Amino acid sequence: MADIKEITEKIRQFRDERDWLQFHNHKDMALSIVLEATEVLEHFQWKSHREVEQYGAEHSKEIGEELADVAKYLFELADNLGIDLSQAIVDKMAHDGAKYPVEKAKGKHTKYNKL
Amino acid sequence: MADIKEITEKIRQFRDERDWLQFHNHKDMALSIVLEATEVLEHFQWKSHREVEQYGAEHSKEIGEELADVAKYLFELADNLGIDLSQAIVDKMAHDGAKYPVEKAKGKHTKYNKL
Amino acid sequence: MADIKEITEKIRQFRDERDWLQFHNHKDMALSIVLEATEVLEHFQWKSHREVEQYGAEHSKEIGEELADVAKYLFELADNLGIDLSQAIVDKMAHDGAKYPVEKAKGKHTKYNKL
Amino acid sequence: MADIKEITEKIRQFRDERDWLQFHNHKDMALSIVLEATEVLEHFQWKSHREVEQYGAEHSKEIGEELADVAKYLFELADNLGIDLSQAIVDKMAHDGAKYPVEKAKGKHTKYNKL
Repeated sequence: MADIKEITEKIRQFRDERDWLQFHNHKDMALSIVLEATEVLEHFQWKSHREVEQYGAEHSKEIGEELADVAKYLFELADNLGIDLSQAIVDKMAHDGAKYPVEKAKGKHTKYNKL
Repeated sequence: MADIKEITEKIRQFRDERDWLQFHNHKDMALSIVLEATEVLEHFQWKSHREVEQYGAEHSKEIGEELADVAKYLFELADNLGIDLSQAIVDKMAHDGAKYPVEKAKGKHTKYNKL
Repeated sequence: MADIKEITEKIRQFRDERDWLQFHNHKDMALSIVLEATEVLEHFQWKSHREVEQYGAEHSKEIGEELADVAKYLFELADNLGIDLSQAIVDKMAHDGAKYPVEKAKGKHTKYNKL
Repeated sequence: MADIKEITEKIRQFRDERDWLQFHNHKDMALSIVLEATEVLEHFQWKSHREVEQYGAEHSKEIGEELADVAKYLFELADNLGIDLSQAIVDKMAHDGAKYPVEKAKGKHTKYNKL
């Protein structure tokens, strides 16, 4: 099962069985995405480039659990807001493609407004 | 198109056309998920519960663009780490279901270790 | 002791006794401020306005420890960058005062560019 | 002027002239510290160790403005919670000193529970 809509349906069901929608206002949901995202980031704190690579290879299971937490809140918030997340991603990539044309952006990490 | 793997394939292609993998180490990717997540959160700063609801309804398009940015980095980081994100979400929900059994967690926002 | 420079001197000494400057590059310092700040925020996750007030009153000691962690990294990063933080705050407030004149900003949480 | 209490007094005055205390509940304050902290972090996104050093040297003024924003919310939140921030920092450093004794922690970025 790799479909965002199907997973979102399961997330919604999990939430509603517990009667948690009352707490899942958009602000707390957005705040929760940030909190879970920083738990991913914490894995890499103080680590050098080399250490980051090795750590990632050795701890992908734990990091995957944190990424899953980000995804759960992300999919649910999109759903709560009536956003089709897959479509939003596709649209955003088209937009980014125009902001970062291959010939200008290739091999650079410069922000679009300084390209 | 709602499949995480398909979208991830497009994200990877976008990145590789621009030769950006060299910048996309796990630490900067995790950091970027956090940065994009805070852009979502910023929409709700200083707003009351009522204002949050109304704002969400009126600005879902802009918020959807920020959620898409979170998703893009999230899907790519999972991919870079060799994580099957869909499976990780399903596994995490099973795990959470055990930590938050319906009969104990219903209608409460208490953390599992205090339930 | 309430002086930023004195406290910063103690922070520097603590760090140097442990030979930690090698890890305290600006990126990891900035990342660490974010991580500690989210630990403050986590205290308020899922809580209603009323619960937040009560929780703050009852847990100010624990929250104070998290705020201290933010301050430690904040003061050290400013120091590492050669920034006089007290002066930077005073300057920023003067700048903010011009962006948010009392007569326009009073009683509103509107961003300056929409005032 | 380098005294946290004096600066906090000015911050409080700035806020009260604008009648902003009504928006400055602890949750939004904590959230705002996070948002400002990520603005610091954004300066270093995608940059290599070498680039971070050079960028920090060349942009300390802008970064100082972001650090000032973090400090303003940090000092005010501590004040709102009745926390003596200077004392909290001193106490936290004593606590950290016990968790990270020099002879065990020197030259390592290991977390205390794995030292």
